[in-house]
Amino acid sequence: MRNVAIIGIGQTPVDEHWGTSLRALAAKAVLSALDDANLPGVEALYVGNMLSGILTSQENLGALIAETCGMPGIEAVKVEAACGSAAAAFRQAVLAVASGAVDSATAVGVEKLTEMSGTATTFGLATASDSDYEAAMGLSFVAINALLMRRYMHEYGWRKEDFAPFVMNAHRNAAHNPNAMFRKPITAEQYAQAKVVADPINLLDSSPIGDGAAAVVVVAEEHLSRYGGRPVAVRACEIGTDTIALDNRKDPLWLEGVERSTLKAFRSAGVRHQDIDFFELHDAFSIMTALSLEASGFAEKGRALKLANEAYFGIGGKMPLMTFGGLKGRGHPVGATGVYQIVEACLQLRDQAPAAIHVSGARRAMTQNIGGSGANVVTTILERMG
Amino acid sequence: MRNVAIIGIGQTPVDEHWGTSLRALAAKAVLSALDDANLPGVEALYVGNMLSGILTSQENLGALIAETCGMPGIEAVKVEAACGSAAAAFRQAVLAVASGAVDSATAVGVEKLTEMSGTATTFGLATASDSDYEAAMGLSFVAINALLMRRYMHEYGWRKEDFAPFVMNAHRNAAHNPNAMFRKPITAEQYAQAKVVADPINLLDSSPIGDGAAAVVVVAEEHLSRYGGRPVAVRACEIGTDTIALDNRKDPLWLEGVERSTLKAFRSAGVRHQDIDFFELHDAFSIMTALSLEASGFAEKGRALKLANEAYFGIGGKMPLMTFGGLKGRGHPVGATGVYQIVEACLQLRDQAPAAIHVSGARRAMTQNIGGSGANVVTTILERMG
Repeated sequence: MRNVAIIGIGQTPVDEHWGTSLRALAAKAVLSALDDANLPGVEALYVGNMLSGILTSQENLGALIAETCGMPGIEAVKVEAACGSAAAAFRQAVLAVASGAVDSATAVGVEKLTEMSGTATTFGLATASDSDYEAAMGLSFVAINALLMRRYMHEYGWRKEDFAPFVMNAHRNAAHNPNAMFRKPITAEQYAQAKVVADPINLLDSSPIGDGAAAVVVVAEEHLSRYGGRPVAVRACEIGTDTIALDNRKDPLWLEGVERSTLKAFRSAGVRHQDIDFFELHDAFSIMTALSLEASGFAEKGRALKLANEAYFGIGGKMPLMTFGGLKGRGHPVGATGVYQIVEACLQLRDQAPAAIHVSGARRAMTQNIGGSGANVVTTILERMG
Repeated sequence: MRNVAIIGIGQTPVDEHWGTSLRALAAKAVLSALDDANLPGVEALYVGNMLSGILTSQENLGALIAETCGMPGIEAVKVEAACGSAAAAFRQAVLAVASGAVDSATAVGVEKLTEMSGTATTFGLATASDSDYEAAMGLSFVAINALLMRRYMHEYGWRKEDFAPFVMNAHRNAAHNPNAMFRKPITAEQYAQAKVVADPINLLDSSPIGDGAAAVVVVAEEHLSRYGGRPVAVRACEIGTDTIALDNRKDPLWLEGVERSTLKAFRSAGVRHQDIDFFELHDAFSIMTALSLEASGFAEKGRALKLANEAYFGIGGKMPLMTFGGLKGRGHPVGATGVYQIVEACLQLRDQAPAAIHVSGARRAMTQNIGGSGANVVTTILERMG
């Protein structure tokens, strides 16, 4: 199995892109990543997307986006794993190059959500849950997370305001990310007063959906001398799953998919927790930040909120989190998010992050993209080269 | 890159499975393939599916089906390439094992279509075409194929009845396939009198949609001694694409995606046309049979209908086609079809086909699964072992 490196990255701002079609949005990110890699094209394209069929009546995105990017004819498919689609597409791109089947591939995550009615989007997002046993009972995706948050507070004795520092951290970092949807810091008071969406989840616990596309170009490490640019090594990209429906899990507060995916990634990369310098996690809701930190092994069970302080997650802290604002501040274009996380980690490892959010000297990054409420988890470990 | 072999196959009948959920249908095929391989589970699952989000409000099929099959936790994603989804999922399973990332994987194609209204299904199938430039203009998928058929007849001077032998061949073979949806031979008179769906396409030019699931288990050839059963070697599985919209093609009657995919597969497998002993092609409409034979290089441009005779495509002929009935007779559960073709080819190469449709002594099979009107094409070459 060949080692794989990222040699090009591209992204659009996460925003309401009403004037740009899905294919054009994807092409912007792909062409920007190809330009960054100084390549005219690649041999294979993997598209991460969740909702184009339901929301824009378009499937077959692989061929469509290959054509839009001026690469008609290349191998191209769509990969879907709910909100984990983009990193799952990245995994396939890495496997294609690692196997030797192709020498170069692009993974692009793309999603358009904001042109639709809220009802259509809520319905669409619910397809990530169990349609027979959750969605059909009226359980929306935010309601599932509200159940988890309520249970977490009940079991471990935390108060709602204990989650605030994670959210404030994400927004503070997003303020420096030119591609973020929300670029204003928020205060603890604003968090406390935010409107409730599904008790106990309020507007500031929830990441905003958005439109966006992000792309990376991967090649074999053994061929790196052919290319210029600033490569970043892919040390691991591993998928772990769990049951889709919460009620099928032994303990709803323990994300086994996260644990499996993290352990596999650590094993593949040959690293331990102390080797990770910063962590882009999947803070779709603030409860997911806590559950991810715990099942990934960065915090003890029920104790993640003890880490909710600047000394831990700040840019100069022990384990900087959501350094570009995370899903909360950058925005969450669901099927595109996983590649945004990888692009942001590359910017850090290439020393190209804006100064205020630059994790100086970082050697290894971990990103974690989650589909459903922990059902499909993709953990990636990236490393600075040279 | 490791060589890969198929050691287990499973399928459900293609039918109207109103009493069986999508997940249960998929599990039947997966468990049957695991049973055939004499394995309790695999390391990774690739699900080929096109329309579960739109028609059954369920995405995240990877995790869902892994769980339903009693393999919670394993790597699992959905792969989508319109009607080519299943073979595209097979390609990912092959790459995962070829790379060494996993030692065993399952590809399952699954689709449920018949419980929905015809309108919903027509709308769903149109997402395989270009939503902005084709579907939005009212062009349904059958209408696109009608344009191609009319043009073909006009350009090359064929009559409608010249297509009949292909259709009769498919139905005659399907009569012997216990998993086929339609098991009655048809006559030239029935073809001539069939109701017109979209002129010149009649009901018997169109493959019937259906519900179904088919699965295969793949492992590395170097580990074959660990397993029992009757392995079939995967000599190539390659994807080629083309523009989605017909109007973007230089020549609508030449399927460049088919040509690219076939040439890549021949190169990978190191074979030529004369090395192929039978061909399971994607006869979604009878015009596609002609266009596929030509772009695959089995017939000259515009001359495929000269091959529409028993001496060519019959079971004992030069190049048996659709030996289990093809999409036309077996049925076309869109996102599942590609794995049905592969399962059927394995049955032939393992000498397990029913006697009346057994291609005796066949050494190499080619299968070709097409997404959209030639936009995404997966060509697979399988070989008898031992």
